Amino acid sequence: MIPTAIIGAAGYTGVELVRWLATHPCLDLVAASSDADAGRAVSSLYPGLLGTGAGSLALVTHEQAASAKGLALAFLAVPHTAAQQVAGTLLARGTTVIDLSADFRLKDAQAYERWYGVPHTAQELLATAVYGLPELCREELRSVAAGVAEGTPALIANPGCYPTATTLAALPALAAGLLEDAPLVANAISGVSGAGRAATSTTHFCSADSDLAAYGAATHRHTPEIEQALAQAAGRPVSVVFTPHLAPLKRGMVSTVVAPLAQGIGPAQVEEAYAERYADEPFVAMMPFGTMPHSAHVAGTNRALVGIAVDERAGRLVASCAIDNLGKGAASQAVQNANLALRLPEDAGLVSLPPLV
Amino acid sequence: MIPTAIIGAAGYTGVELVRWLATHPCLDLVAASSDADAGRAVSSLYPGLLGTGAGSLALVTHEQAASAKGLALAFLAVPHTAAQQVAGTLLARGTTVIDLSADFRLKDAQAYERWYGVPHTAQELLATAVYGLPELCREELRSVAAGVAEGTPALIANPGCYPTATTLAALPALAAGLLEDAPLVANAISGVSGAGRAATSTTHFCSADSDLAAYGAATHRHTPEIEQALAQAAGRPVSVVFTPHLAPLKRGMVSTVVAPLAQGIGPAQVEEAYAERYADEPFVAMMPFGTMPHSAHVAGTNRALVGIAVDERAGRLVASCAIDNLGKGAASQAVQNANLALRLPEDAGLVSLPPLV
Amino acid sequence: MIPTAIIGAAGYTGVELVRWLATHPCLDLVAASSDADAGRAVSSLYPGLLGTGAGSLALVTHEQAASAKGLALAFLAVPHTAAQQVAGTLLARGTTVIDLSADFRLKDAQAYERWYGVPHTAQELLATAVYGLPELCREELRSVAAGVAEGTPALIANPGCYPTATTLAALPALAAGLLEDAPLVANAISGVSGAGRAATSTTHFCSADSDLAAYGAATHRHTPEIEQALAQAAGRPVSVVFTPHLAPLKRGMVSTVVAPLAQGIGPAQVEEAYAERYADEPFVAMMPFGTMPHSAHVAGTNRALVGIAVDERAGRLVASCAIDNLGKGAASQAVQNANLALRLPEDAGLVSLPPLV
Amino acid sequence: MIPTAIIGAAGYTGVELVRWLATHPCLDLVAASSDADAGRAVSSLYPGLLGTGAGSLALVTHEQAASAKGLALAFLAVPHTAAQQVAGTLLARGTTVIDLSADFRLKDAQAYERWYGVPHTAQELLATAVYGLPELCREELRSVAAGVAEGTPALIANPGCYPTATTLAALPALAAGLLEDAPLVANAISGVSGAGRAATSTTHFCSADSDLAAYGAATHRHTPEIEQALAQAAGRPVSVVFTPHLAPLKRGMVSTVVAPLAQGIGPAQVEEAYAERYADEPFVAMMPFGTMPHSAHVAGTNRALVGIAVDERAGRLVASCAIDNLGKGAASQAVQNANLALRLPEDAGLVSLPPLV
Repeated sequence: MIPTAIIGAAGYTGVELVRWLATHPCLDLVAASSDADAGRAVSSLYPGLLGTGAGSLALVTHEQAASAKGLALAFLAVPHTAAQQVAGTLLARGTTVIDLSADFRLKDAQAYERWYGVPHTAQELLATAVYGLPELCREELRSVAAGVAEGTPALIANPGCYPTATTLAALPALAAGLLEDAPLVANAISGVSGAGRAATSTTHFCSADSDLAAYGAATHRHTPEIEQALAQAAGRPVSVVFTPHLAPLKRGMVSTVVAPLAQGIGPAQVEEAYAERYADEPFVAMMPFGTMPHSAHVAGTNRALVGIAVDERAGRLVASCAIDNLGKGAASQAVQNANLALRLPEDAGLVSLPPLV
Repeated sequence: MIPTAIIGAAGYTGVELVRWLATHPCLDLVAASSDADAGRAVSSLYPGLLGTGAGSLALVTHEQAASAKGLALAFLAVPHTAAQQVAGTLLARGTTVIDLSADFRLKDAQAYERWYGVPHTAQELLATAVYGLPELCREELRSVAAGVAEGTPALIANPGCYPTATTLAALPALAAGLLEDAPLVANAISGVSGAGRAATSTTHFCSADSDLAAYGAATHRHTPEIEQALAQAAGRPVSVVFTPHLAPLKRGMVSTVVAPLAQGIGPAQVEEAYAERYADEPFVAMMPFGTMPHSAHVAGTNRALVGIAVDERAGRLVASCAIDNLGKGAASQAVQNANLALRLPEDAGLVSLPPLV
Repeated sequence: MIPTAIIGAAGYTGVELVRWLATHPCLDLVAASSDADAGRAVSSLYPGLLGTGAGSLALVTHEQAASAKGLALAFLAVPHTAAQQVAGTLLARGTTVIDLSADFRLKDAQAYERWYGVPHTAQELLATAVYGLPELCREELRSVAAGVAEGTPALIANPGCYPTATTLAALPALAAGLLEDAPLVANAISGVSGAGRAATSTTHFCSADSDLAAYGAATHRHTPEIEQALAQAAGRPVSVVFTPHLAPLKRGMVSTVVAPLAQGIGPAQVEEAYAERYADEPFVAMMPFGTMPHSAHVAGTNRALVGIAVDERAGRLVASCAIDNLGKGAASQAVQNANLALRLPEDAGLVSLPPLV
Repeated sequence: MIPTAIIGAAGYTGVELVRWLATHPCLDLVAASSDADAGRAVSSLYPGLLGTGAGSLALVTHEQAASAKGLALAFLAVPHTAAQQVAGTLLARGTTVIDLSADFRLKDAQAYERWYGVPHTAQELLATAVYGLPELCREELRSVAAGVAEGTPALIANPGCYPTATTLAALPALAAGLLEDAPLVANAISGVSGAGRAATSTTHFCSADSDLAAYGAATHRHTPEIEQALAQAAGRPVSVVFTPHLAPLKRGMVSTVVAPLAQGIGPAQVEEAYAERYADEPFVAMMPFGTMPHSAHVAGTNRALVGIAVDERAGRLVASCAIDNLGKGAASQAVQNANLALRLPEDAGLVSLPPLV
C-alpha cells in the first residue's frame, strides 16, 4: 500500500477523494487535512461516513498532512493559490503531487495571472507540471511515471470539470483535423456541487432548485484552460466561446460543443474519428451516432459518455460529453492520474457503476 | 366579456390557458374541451383546481367546444395536425383562432411537411396566418386586429417555446445588423413540462431527476421556425445550429445564442441595440450588461429576461433569454396574442409576479 | 388604500408579503424595511421583481418604516424577540400589527421563555394579542376588528406554519369531541424555505436535495403553540407529540395527525364533523374521504386542503393537511388576518390558483 | 462462484440487483430475465450500464432463467402473484430462492388474501419461508442456511421497504419490553422509485417534483407485514397505524415511529436498549441520542441509520430509521439474505459508501 495524503479533505472534491481512496486497492490514506476542521473526524462533516473507516479518520492540519512520514503521493484539494504554496515543498520531499486546483494547469503564467487576478508564486514548477487529462496527455503522463519509478516525483495538474467535458467532446475532431479554424462554441451545464461546499445565496436550495441560468459568459476562468487543451489536441491555436450554465441537480455535467466542419467532412468521417480515438480509452464510451449522453448515466463514476451529430444544413459538428463533475471532472480523474503516475492499473479503484435509478 | 373556448384543455398548455383565463378581466371561458376526458371536471385532472370555478368546469368534446354559440375566440391547444383540421371551420364561423400547435407557424408548407413528416391539409390558411411573437410581428398583429374589429377573424400561430426564447435572445442584434452572416449557435435548456403530460420513460421522475442531457441535435422541429423568425428579424436568411437540453425542473427555459459580431461592432453598440429594441416591450426586460437571466425569475409569468455579453477575444455575442416554457413560451403568450387581436390592453390578465422563493 | 408597512421585508416571509401586497386591492405598501439592506431596491435581493413596481421599492430601516406617517397597518416579519421590541410602539401610534414571529403566539409568557430560551419583554401585550388562525379564532378576530373600527389598533399573532397545518388537520375532530383524551401524534414534512433565507449547511442544495430527515424531535418550538391551539379547539388540555421532517422542495408542507377516536366514533361521524366545520371556510377544502392532499395543489395560495381517513382496526383518525408554508403558513394568512382586522373582504387580494404543472 | 439468476431484472429492484451482483465476489449472475424485454441487453433499458459487463448481459425469459443449469440461487423480483408461480419449481430443482415480492412475507394466507385481494396459490410453502430481516430473524436464517449446506434449498421472503425501516426503528424498544401495549404510529416518507418503473401520472416528474402527500392511509398493504414483524419482536400482538407519504427524491426512505413508553421507562433505558440491540449489527448504526438520520447518508448502501428521542412530556418514544428503499429496503438486503443463506460473509459485496455530495 502506498502512503497517500489528501491536503484539503473537507471540501466536496476532497471528501470525494476520501471516498474513492476508501476502496482503492493500492493507495493507503495516511493523512487527510483541513486547517479549519483539524481534530474533527471526517464523519462529523459528512455523516454519511458514520461508522466507516474513512469516517473515523481524524483530520489534521495541512502542515501535518504534508509532512506525514514516507508520503509517496499527495492530492491537493485546496483552493488555487494555496496549492502553489505547498506543491514545491512536497515535491522536494519526494512526494508526487496531484493538484486539483487551477494552479498548474496553464502553461503560461501570465495567462494565469490575467484570468485569476493573482500572481503565480511557483512559476518554476510550471515547466515540469503535466496536464492530467489522460485521453489527451497519456504520453506525458507515462513519461513522468517513468521518472517517478526512478525517484523523481511528478507534479500533475488535474483538469477542471468544464475543460474535461469540453475537451473530451471536441478532441477527436480536432486531432483528426476535421474542423475549420474558427472559434468553437461550448455551452455547458453543471450541477450545484460545482459551486463548492460554501453555503451562499447561489447554493441555497431555494435559489438553485427549479432554476436555470447561464453565468460567467465570456469571463469564466476555465476558458484559457479549454483553449490550451484544445490547441494541444489540434496542434494549432484554438479559440473557444464558453458559456457555463447552472441547473438544479447535485452532481453532473454536460458540455455541448458546436464547431464548423472543414470542407468535405461529413458524418462518416466524424463517426470514424471518434470511434478510433476512443476505442482503447477505458473511461470514455461513445453513444450511438446522433444520440446524446445523460449525466445521470455516469454519476458517481470516472466515466465520460460522448455523443455526436452532424448538422449538415449548417456544416456543423455537434458533440456533447457527459461526466460527473466531481468524478471524471475532479476526484476520480485525480485517482486515474495517480494510477498512471504510479504505474498502477489505470482503473485501480475506479470500477464503479452509476445508480441506475 | 368575450366568449372564449379552449380546444384541448387537458394537456399542460391547455390547462395553463384555463388558469390564465380564470383571472382574465375580458375573456370569458365558455367551453373547454378534451375528447378523451369529456364529461369530467377540470379539477378531476388537476386537483389543484378543486373548489375553484375553473376546476368545476366540465370538459366537453372538441366538436362541442368549437360549435359553442357566439364564440369570438378559440385557443387551439391540440397536437399539430389536429389543429389543421379545426382551424378553418372556426374561422368560417367568425371565430378568431390562436393556435398553439406548430400547424401554422411555418410559412412554407413544404418545410412543414419535411420537418414534421406529415402532409399539411390546410395550406390555404398559411397565407393569412400571423406569427404571434409580438416583439417581432407587432405590425402584422395590429393589422389582423383591425380586420377582427371589422369582422374578419384572425388566425394567429402562437410560437414554440424554444423559438420564443431563442428569437428574443437574438432579435435586436439581427434587426440592428450587428451580426455577421454566419450560422448562429443556439443551445437551450428546458424543464420537463416541455415534454408534455404523457407519462413516459423520459418524463418519469426517476429518469429526469438529477439528470442533464442534450437531445434532438441537428433534428429538432423547432429549428426551421427559429430560422424563419430570425430571418424576419434580420431581413435575410439566417442559419441556426440548435441543440436543446433537458434539465430537472418542471417549468423554465433558457436559450443561449452565440453569434459572430460584424466587423467593428463592440459591447456599446450591442447594449444600445438591445436597450432600444426592448425599451417599450411590456414583457421583455434586460439584465444589466454581462449578467445572465434566471428562469426562476420569470416562472409563472409572461415575462422574458434577456442578458447579453460580448466575448471580445472571439468577436462573439453571447445572448441568453429566460422564459417560462408554459408561460411566454406557450399559454400566456397566447393570451398576449388574443389581447392584441381583440384590441384589449396588451397586458390584460397577464400581470403576475413569479414566486420569489 | 390603507397605508401599510412591512417591517422585515428581506426574508422569505417578508418578500412573500411584498408579493401579495403588490396585487392587493386595498392595502398600499408605503414602506418596506430591512436594517441590513436599507437603501437597496427589493429587486436587488429578489431579481424576479426586476422591472416591477414592487421590485423598485427602496428598502428603509425598521425604524423608518415603523414611523411612516399615517401607518394603519404593519406586518412584522422580523425574528422573534425583535418583534417584541417594536410592537408596542406601533400600537401606541395607532397602527394595527400583524406579527409573523412567535412573540405573541403563546398566551403563557413562561412557556415562551422555556421553549424559546429568552425573556419576554412585552408581556403586557400578551393579553390583548389575538391568535390569527381564522378557522379557530374568527370570533376574537371579529371582536378586535370592531375595536379597530373604533380606533383601537389590534395585535394579531400570525400562527406558525406547522401549527397552522396541524391545527387545521385536527380541529374539527377535537371541536366535535370525537377524540379520546390522549396524546395526538403529528408528523409534518416541510419544504426547505421553512428554514429561511440564511445560507447554511442545512439549506445548501447539495445537503437538501435528494434527502429526507426528521429533526427537532420532542423539542420543536412549535409544539406548545400547537397544543395551545388544539386545546382551544377541544376546550380541554391537549398533548401532542410533534415530529417535523425536511424534504427536498422549496415550498410546501403536509402535517399528518393520528389520534385515538372516542368510543363509538366511526367514519361517518368524522366525515360529517369535518364537512360541517369547514363548510363555510373560504380557504379550507376537504378531499374526498380516504384521500390525502398534495402540497403542490396549494402552492402559492392561501388554501389548505384536508384529507381524512379512519383506521378502524386501531380505532384511529388519520388527518392530513397540506398548505404552502409561506402562504397559508405565513404571509397570505397574515393578509387574511389583515383583511379580517380591517373589515375588508376576507379574500381580498388572496384569490390565486396554484401552478397546475 | 455461485450460479445465480435474477428473475425479473428489468424493474427497479431487479436492475438494482444486477448492479450489486456486478461487484459481488461470490455470486455469478448467469441469467437475468424479463418476459417483456427478452432478447435485449440490460444496457438498452439502463444506458448507465453501457459498456459494462452487466450492461451487455442479454435478458432471457423468466422460464429460461429459472431453468438455467446448476442454478444455486435465484432472486425473484417479479410482482406478487407471479412469485408464487415460480418459487415452488425453483425450490424443487434445488435452487434457493430470495423472493423480493410480498408473496411469502405474511405467515397468514388469509391475511395475504385480505390485504392483497388475490388468492394465494402456494400456501404450502408459507411454513418453510423465512422472513429475511436479519436484524429480527437471524436465527431462522442461520437455521435455513444449515439446511442449504445440507442440500435443502431455502425460501426467504425479503421484506418490504416500509416494513424494513419501520421495524428497525421500533425493534429494540419492543424487544426490550419498553413500550406500552397500545398502537404504534408510524409515518413514513418514500422517494418516487418506490412506485416502480411504470410511467404513470403519479411518477411523472411534473406531478412528483415540488410535491408532498400522504397516501394509502389506513389501507397500505405493508401494514400487516409491519405488524407481523413487530409482533415477532415484541412477543405479543402489535397494532400499527401506518401512513406513508411521497416526497420528491428518487431514492430514500425515512420511517418515524411514535409509541407510548411503559411506566417508568426513560431516555437512559431507551438509549441502552438500542445500543445493545444494534451493537453487533453490521448494517445498522445509531445516531447520537436525540438526533435523527438522513436518507441521503445511506443512499446506495445496505445501511440503516436509526435515531431516537424521548418526549418526556407525553411519555412517548420517537424513533426514526433512514434507509435506501432500493438498498436495505430491497435489493441489497436481498443480497445480505443470500449471503446468510449461503454462509458467505454477511457483508460480501455489500461494502459501499453513499455519495457524500
